[in-house]
Amino acid sequence: MTMHYVHGYSAKEKDRLTDQATTLTSLLHSDTRYPAGALVLEPGCGVGAQTVTLATNSPDASFVAIDISQESLAIAESRVRAAKLDNVSFQREDVFQLPFSAGHFDHVFVCFLLEHLRCPERALAEFLRVLKAGGSMTVIEGDHGSAFFYPDSDDARSAIQCLVQLQRQAGGDPFIGRHLYPLLTQNGLRDVSVSPRFVYADASRPQLVEGFTKKTFTAMVESVGTEAIQHHLTEPDAWARGIRDLYRTAETDATFCYTFFKAVGVK
Amino acid sequence: MTMHYVHGYSAKEKDRLTDQATTLTSLLHSDTRYPAGALVLEPGCGVGAQTVTLATNSPDASFVAIDISQESLAIAESRVRAAKLDNVSFQREDVFQLPFSAGHFDHVFVCFLLEHLRCPERALAEFLRVLKAGGSMTVIEGDHGSAFFYPDSDDARSAIQCLVQLQRQAGGDPFIGRHLYPLLTQNGLRDVSVSPRFVYADASRPQLVEGFTKKTFTAMVESVGTEAIQHHLTEPDAWARGIRDLYRTAETDATFCYTFFKAVGVK
Repeated sequence: MTMHYVHGYSAKEKDRLTDQATTLTSLLHSDTRYPAGALVLEPGCGVGAQTVTLATNSPDASFVAIDISQESLAIAESRVRAAKLDNVSFQREDVFQLPFSAGHFDHVFVCFLLEHLRCPERALAEFLRVLKAGGSMTVIEGDHGSAFFYPDSDDARSAIQCLVQLQRQAGGDPFIGRHLYPLLTQNGLRDVSVSPRFVYADASRPQLVEGFTKKTFTAMVESVGTEAIQHHLTEPDAWARGIRDLYRTAETDATFCYTFFKAVGVK
Repeated sequence: MTMHYVHGYSAKEKDRLTDQATTLTSLLHSDTRYPAGALVLEPGCGVGAQTVTLATNSPDASFVAIDISQESLAIAESRVRAAKLDNVSFQREDVFQLPFSAGHFDHVFVCFLLEHLRCPERALAEFLRVLKAGGSMTVIEGDHGSAFFYPDSDDARSAIQCLVQLQRQAGGDPFIGRHLYPLLTQNGLRDVSVSPRFVYADASRPQLVEGFTKKTFTAMVESVGTEAIQHHLTEPDAWARGIRDLYRTAETDATFCYTFFKAVGVK
C-alpha cells in the first residue's frame, strides 16, 4: 500500500521536521529508554528526526529503522552517522509487509506514522506480529484538532481545517491522537497507557514560540497552502489571513496550545 | 468553569464525587501552599469548593473568602465548618470594590471567577491594590474551547458552542484560559508563569471518566439546555443529539480532553 503524505519531502519540509524534533525531543522522548541488548523496530523512521534521539537515549539497544522512501532513509542514515551512532541499521520496507519473522523484535517504536496511513489497523497487526510476547509498543502521534490559541481567529482555524481536509483526502487521520487509546486497545495491545504531551507556548517560553508555534505548527500549515488553493479548499486572500493570524499567535501578547499523545502498550 | 456538583443520594455516589474532587483537586491545587502567618484573599469563593482545599493545604495561613452571594457564602461557611477548619473568615463583598486597605494581603487566590466577569481587568486592578508588593496572585481558569474528544461529533461541538455563546452573552469569556498570560502580564503582574493542567480521560482512568467527562463537563453543558433552546441557539432534537454524543465520549472506547490553566504572578 502506498503511503500518501500531506507533509512531505521538500527541503523546507526537512528543515521544519528537524526544528520540530529539536524542540520537542525532551517532551516526547525523554521517558523512552530501552535496555542493553534490546532489538527495537522503528517503522516509518522518515528522515530520522526521532531515530537519532532514540538511538542516543538507548546506546546499548539496537534499532532497525525502516521507511518506504529510499530518499528519506539516505538522509536518516547520514544523520545517524553524523551523530556517530553505530546502533541503528536501515532497511527500505513497506510497513504493511515486513520481512521479519514473528516475535523478532523486543520492542516497537512508532512516531508520526499512523496519522498518515489509510489503514493503521493493518500496520498495527504487522507490528504486533513481529513483536515478541511481553514486548512493548510505543506510539506517538499529534492531533491537529487539539490546537487552540490567543488571539482566536476564524481565518486561522479555517487554514488549519484545510490541512485537516487534505490529510483526510490522502487517507490519513489528522485527529488520531485522541483515538490512540481505543485504537491500540482494540488491536491487540494490553495495558495501554496514554499520556498526553501538552505544548503550551507564551512569551515566557521563547524557544517554544519560535520552535513550535512558528517553525513547527504554523510552518506545517503553511506548507499545504498551494495544495489547499488548488483543491479549492480556500482562496488566496483567506489563506493569507489565516497564516498571518497563526503567526500572530507567536507575538509577545499571545499564546498557543497543541497536544501530542504518547501511548505505550504490551503484547 | 462553574462546577456542577450533582448531589449524591447513595454511598457509592458520594464516593464517586469524592474521587472527582480528589482527582481534580490534586491536579489544580496540590502545588499551592501558603506559609504560616500568611493572609490570603480568595475573591469569588462561591460555595467554597476550593476554599476547603486551600485552607486544608495551608493550615497555618489565614484566608478571607469573599463572594457577592450571601447564599453561596452560607454554604461555603458550612462546608468549612464541617471540615473543622478555623483559618477562614467570610465576608459578603463586591470584587470590584473591596473594603481593604492597599497592600492588606500577602497573597491573592482566584479560581473560576474571571471567566464570569464583564471586566476582569477592573477586578484584577482591585486585587492588585489590596495585594502587598512582592505578594503572589494565583489564577485558575478553564477554557471551553479546549475540549475535544473521541468519537468527534458536530452535534456535541454545537452543544458546547451554546454554552460558549450563553457565557459570552452574559459578559463572560469562556476561552479565558488561553488568555491568562497576556491578561495578567498587561495588568500589572510580573514574572507570570502559566502551567496548563490537561485533563485526559479514557477507560483506563474510570474515576476521571465518571467524575470529569460525565459529572463535570457534560453535566455543565447539559445544565444550560433550557436556556440555549429559549435563546434559539439550538432546537430540542439537535440539543439531545449533542448531549447524547457528549455522554458517548464516556464509554470504554472513547476519550475526552480538557485544559485548565493555572497562572502565578508577583506584584
